[in-house]
Amino acid sequence: MRSINDIPIHVLSPDETLTGQAEAVLSEIADLLGRLLETGEAGSIDLRSLPLSPADRDWLNAKLGRGEVEIVLEAGGRSVLTETAYAGVWKVQHCDTEERVVSEFIEVAYIPAIVRPAGADIENAYEKLQSDLKQIS
Amino acid sequence: MRSINDIPIHVLSPDETLTGQAEAVLSEIADLLGRLLETGEAGSIDLRSLPLSPADRDWLNAKLGRGEVEIVLEAGGRSVLTETAYAGVWKVQHCDTEERVVSEFIEVAYIPAIVRPAGADIENAYEKLQSDLKQIS
Repeated sequence: MRSINDIPIHVLSPDETLTGQAEAVLSEIADLLGRLLETGEAGSIDLRSLPLSPADRDWLNAKLGRGEVEIVLEAGGRSVLTETAYAGVWKVQHCDTEERVVSEFIEVAYIPAIVRPAGADIENAYEKLQSDLKQIS
Repeated sequence: MRSINDIPIHVLSPDETLTGQAEAVLSEIADLLGRLLETGEAGSIDLRSLPLSPADRDWLNAKLGRGEVEIVLEAGGRSVLTETAYAGVWKVQHCDTEERVVSEFIEVAYIPAIVRPAGADIENAYEKLQSDLKQIS
């Protein structure tokens, strides 16, 4: 006769457990995409603010997949913005100058705002270029 | 008495010669930046269509410098879009699937058009995500 001790058990550590949070994030992403389509308004989800287990993160990464675009921005620490397989859904990771990851977001936008230069930056570039051209000629 | 043969000469090969074309490109970039500021309209310069010498290219690259953003797009061949030190001025290089450079542009825009997903892409992503979510739950 088999005793209860013979029943194979596998204790899941919290790391291996799906909490349902990842699915909630995916559902929130769908809502934000809908809003982007309707109003043009971008939105984001702060992944660090959520109790995602490592299993949740793996699941979410697998679901989101990879798109065609990767953007690297070097401005007092590196930011990496990766398009997912869903157009308009970006994974955004900011690092400090010691390359420690300091924030992780899902951003739902045509282009993440941080990549687009401000009008004032373009004005400064225009003025600098005009003055550089005067020095050359 | 020194003869004419004593005068040191250095024959510049065409590769080493600045033709004035690079300066013309820089001036054209300034015009396009001005138009971007005034009208929001982007513009581009096809570098392959111009008789730029290697010296011209080096001079232009040195003048344009490097900005904070680099974008890599993988879509049937790699495209690399590099922000220059002048905000709104991008160097854009497209390669074919064998990694041969097939075109080189200067693009003057807030964000090069190729990076921004089309509305239809966002719609498709939204519908796909909705259907994926239904399968999960």
